[in-house]
Amino acid sequence: MTYIHILVYYHNLEKQPNSRLRSEKGEEVCKLVSRNANMENLGNEYLFPEILKWEAEHIQKNPKAQLIRLGVGDTTHPIPEIISSAMAEHCYALSTTQGYKGYGAEQGNMELRIAIAEKFYRDVGIKGEEIFVSDGAQCDISRFQILMGPNATVAVQDPTFPAYIDSSVIVGQSGKIVKETGKYENIVYMNCGPENKFFPDLPNTPRTDIIFFCSPNNPTGHAASRQQLKQLVDFARENKSIIVFDSAYAAYITDDSPKTIFEIPGAKEVAIEIGSFSKFAGFTGVRLGWTVVPEELLYSSGFPLRKDFNRIVCTCFNGASSISQAGGLACLSEQGFRALNNVVDYYKKNTILLVDALESLELQVYGGKNAPYIWVHFPGSSSCDVFNQILERAHIVTVPGRGFGPGGEGYIRISGFGRRECILEASMRLKKYLK
Amino acid sequence: MTYIHILVYYHNLEKQPNSRLRSEKGEEVCKLVSRNANMENLGNEYLFPEILKWEAEHIQKNPKAQLIRLGVGDTTHPIPEIISSAMAEHCYALSTTQGYKGYGAEQGNMELRIAIAEKFYRDVGIKGEEIFVSDGAQCDISRFQILMGPNATVAVQDPTFPAYIDSSVIVGQSGKIVKETGKYENIVYMNCGPENKFFPDLPNTPRTDIIFFCSPNNPTGHAASRQQLKQLVDFARENKSIIVFDSAYAAYITDDSPKTIFEIPGAKEVAIEIGSFSKFAGFTGVRLGWTVVPEELLYSSGFPLRKDFNRIVCTCFNGASSISQAGGLACLSEQGFRALNNVVDYYKKNTILLVDALESLELQVYGGKNAPYIWVHFPGSSSCDVFNQILERAHIVTVPGRGFGPGGEGYIRISGFGRRECILEASMRLKKYLK
Repeated sequence: MTYIHILVYYHNLEKQPNSRLRSEKGEEVCKLVSRNANMENLGNEYLFPEILKWEAEHIQKNPKAQLIRLGVGDTTHPIPEIISSAMAEHCYALSTTQGYKGYGAEQGNMELRIAIAEKFYRDVGIKGEEIFVSDGAQCDISRFQILMGPNATVAVQDPTFPAYIDSSVIVGQSGKIVKETGKYENIVYMNCGPENKFFPDLPNTPRTDIIFFCSPNNPTGHAASRQQLKQLVDFARENKSIIVFDSAYAAYITDDSPKTIFEIPGAKEVAIEIGSFSKFAGFTGVRLGWTVVPEELLYSSGFPLRKDFNRIVCTCFNGASSISQAGGLACLSEQGFRALNNVVDYYKKNTILLVDALESLELQVYGGKNAPYIWVHFPGSSSCDVFNQILERAHIVTVPGRGFGPGGEGYIRISGFGRRECILEASMRLKKYLK
Repeated sequence: MTYIHILVYYHNLEKQPNSRLRSEKGEEVCKLVSRNANMENLGNEYLFPEILKWEAEHIQKNPKAQLIRLGVGDTTHPIPEIISSAMAEHCYALSTTQGYKGYGAEQGNMELRIAIAEKFYRDVGIKGEEIFVSDGAQCDISRFQILMGPNATVAVQDPTFPAYIDSSVIVGQSGKIVKETGKYENIVYMNCGPENKFFPDLPNTPRTDIIFFCSPNNPTGHAASRQQLKQLVDFARENKSIIVFDSAYAAYITDDSPKTIFEIPGAKEVAIEIGSFSKFAGFTGVRLGWTVVPEELLYSSGFPLRKDFNRIVCTCFNGASSISQAGGLACLSEQGFRALNNVVDYYKKNTILLVDALESLELQVYGGKNAPYIWVHFPGSSSCDVFNQILERAHIVTVPGRGFGPGGEGYIRISGFGRRECILEASMRLKKYLK
């Protein structure tokens, strides 16, 4: 039975919903339980695989086009050899009696946990025990959502990285999507645009249990200032909300914006922080990240959230690959860290080139300075139209802002990840076709 | 603020539950939202980290003891070099312009998906598109639970691998644990012991949406016969239940018990299957597994479950490490597979040695034949007492059967994973101390 057959079924079944059906071959079709209502609530497919699908369709239609991918935000630069060598050596060691290791700690190797604490949180006093090594930010967002459960209420920046909202819907924290607004019921959308310096209007934001906050922001590229983050922490403290601070792009900050929420006094009692090796070390395929859960973070009963997070990690996860963790440790060595900073600088230079090209067109360009993402305004236009136009004319894949929520309408996100020659070519094409 | 301080707080807070408190230093303590009731329902810590804790405590008390670890079931044999080399080469390639790859498909590389389908499911017609590559069985169990949601009802074998029950509790499918029975409310425990050939009394089993079924079973080591699995599939078809068939130990089957549920006619419409490289390839630390979701599996509406599983994988996961996947592909090469079979044979021989030792004591011994686990009966004894006795006297770590559910009381599980010299020494000690 092919997939097409099943789709045919699906349509047939809608017409005859209550009977045991027979396939075309006459076999009885066995239908099972009802679909989880939360899954039914999901209003669309997950954004990034969709972008890749559109990409593939474009290639099929235009087989000769030299496509430039500035969409999904995938890293392109080789991993510095000191890091890949450390991983390779770990692999070889697994074939020796002395070097073989089985299960590691679910929370990650303590050596790596301490190295992360030392490298990124030394000044703010986070300890190794508060670091949970993960297989990536997206995975830890979902694990946190399982921990919080279906009754937790959620606020997100709008526009925002789609995993926050989608995982909320999946665990049952939201209602259905409202067609008119494009927003899910029961989720608070905090508009963040140029009109409010990309920072929510907190005095008019309702209280929620969780506030997802990404800085430097994906997709807008805005890094919240110290003063903005202080307002956020004060707001969370007042409301007894938990901030989930996503710092996946912290390595791209060039000004004095805080690289971690824990630079803000009082944050440890109201925030967890999700970090990632993906964009900082090119580990998008290697898979490695972490979450900081401070011991000061307590439920209303006084029970530490860290203990529950640990339970989730032990039950729903079994630790990141030991090979990736060996790589992570090499990333944080003096030599590894220096090499990675060069790679980050390479992408930053890419971003500057793209910003220059776009600004020469007198477009309103945001982000880029503290993030590998550029957020370009096309006032009055549909972001999908602009996306399609750039794809059709310039053969450049971007992301329509609408994919990040209704607040992204009228914008497109352009990623600075790419080889220099592609970025230069993209800059030229953008100048030509967007003129 | 130290962890101890927080614990002190926790105790204080219970006495003064409704006020903003001040710490000993006089700072105001910020307590947040209530704890998720599902997490509150969890009656105990996750089993395996607890075993490791007891292990560590024993070492601390007996620093000179030569501890033998036959508890958690961790692999000990080096990974065949053909596999580690493939992973190492993949690592090196990540440092080259040609070899660097970023994000892979969330579902896994198609080459590996096809190889898994070919190697394990060729005769039963499972296709690469139906294979979802994962970072391990435990992780996919939780992702499946998120997909099914809090309203799904669940049945488990008793005794059983604890992740099924614990993940059910966490997503809200169960009630509280009942102290008298040691069972969670709303979960159906299907007793599986020698009295029923380790197979549930299905005619007296209530209908549930999900049936977790592990074969070869962890912990009992029993592999369900073809006839038993046929009964199970018929039962699921009749009840419109989904079987989650955990085949993590299939490589250890020595008789003609089915290695996959899909050998049973009609299973594709009622079962998903979870497989793992952990125990078959020594990948416990490398992290790699897969889940088969047949396209024939449909919700009552006719909507394919595979589509939802795909959505979960794309949203809550970002694919297994590309390095682990390169290793997985090498495992399935002719040479790799042959080398792994030798490792499996090594562990099987271990298991036989342990069974012989235990049977020489006239103990009632189950499992071992089709699984790396031995399930030893100590009628009338508390499994925790037996566990402690073996630990104290013989310095051997096992697992108390009670840890796998009330049906495990009176048993202990002994793992056959270990170096031969340890297994021989363990056999000797068991003969000496259990006499």
